[in-house]
Amino acid sequence: MSLPEPLSRLVERLQKLPGIGAKGAQRLAFHILRNPRDESELLCDAIRDVKELVTYCSTCNNITAVDPCVICTGPTRDPRIICVIEEPQNVMVVEKTREFRGMYHVLMGVLSPLHGVGPDDLKIKGLLERVGVGGVDEVILATSPTVEGEATALYLARLLKPLGVRVSRIAMGIPVGSDLEYADEVTMTRAMEGRRDL
Amino acid sequence: MSLPEPLSRLVERLQKLPGIGAKGAQRLAFHILRNPRDESELLCDAIRDVKELVTYCSTCNNITAVDPCVICTGPTRDPRIICVIEEPQNVMVVEKTREFRGMYHVLMGVLSPLHGVGPDDLKIKGLLERVGVGGVDEVILATSPTVEGEATALYLARLLKPLGVRVSRIAMGIPVGSDLEYADEVTMTRAMEGRRDL
Repeated sequence: MSLPEPLSRLVERLQKLPGIGAKGAQRLAFHILRNPRDESELLCDAIRDVKELVTYCSTCNNITAVDPCVICTGPTRDPRIICVIEEPQNVMVVEKTREFRGMYHVLMGVLSPLHGVGPDDLKIKGLLERVGVGGVDEVILATSPTVEGEATALYLARLLKPLGVRVSRIAMGIPVGSDLEYADEVTMTRAMEGRRDL
Repeated sequence: MSLPEPLSRLVERLQKLPGIGAKGAQRLAFHILRNPRDESELLCDAIRDVKELVTYCSTCNNITAVDPCVICTGPTRDPRIICVIEEPQNVMVVEKTREFRGMYHVLMGVLSPLHGVGPDDLKIKGLLERVGVGGVDEVILATSPTVEGEATALYLARLLKPLGVRVSRIAMGIPVGSDLEYADEVTMTRAMEGRRDL
């Protein structure tokens, strides 16, 4: 017996979402089938509203319901520091620290020649323009410490330094709370290199 | 910075689905945000169609787009054997064997006093009626070998046997392809009890 067409179509659709495999999609589809109808209506409304109402900030490319976003227009934010990140969801990671009061610039990806992502595919032009008009003292490159993230940071540093701005990179080392035993050699090397006097 | 309202609402909705946690919901929401609009339209259509078009078979309670379902009306199916299962998705597990040619009866759950599920919450009455009208030789109890599944099987056996029908239970033992080393003692005990002469 195969699944009824609407159900197999839903399974197929759900499988296209990231991190959802064949078994997971089937489980979700049966859950949606069993659940009250207004639950699934609310889910659909939420999906539609995200596509309708959420947009990207024309200054920093962060997701927002108003353009420019609340960070770019925030009266307590410091426009002299720009933190460069890969994806909009990275903004939250930095904001959660409650330490950073500067601005953001979302690249919308990283340089990745293997995946055909070059400098023109990222929001680099906008960053250079923001720094170019002046008023920016420091650009913190907070791309991930992956091969692509590192390459992107180096690429950006080379473009930004001639503009007379301080360019920094977030620290790499042992994550707080983790056991040294599980640190890989590259991270450990970075932790040693980045050691600070006490 | 908190997420824009439509996005946090979508995250909240997605988190209500089984097997999707806070991180996973956020990842899905950002995926939906980034993806083309017609992708999410197709997903919503699929969700809606499942609720609109898929129903339960009035005979066996299996999910179906037509009532009675294709198995209940299948000309090659044997109405003398009924396989009793917990959930509609279990039908597929049995059908995949391509060995069973009988009918099904979906209980829509298992007896679970801890969760407040009693006999009246399951589709037991319909099963007794189907067996009561005659023409059924055997009822195979294929509930899961969990505490609840076992209790449900024993409960059903007690109700069915007086109707003069053969009542059987699926075999429990070591799963094919698995290493004996990883078998727990209960499964191993069942495997020994259920041994067959070669």
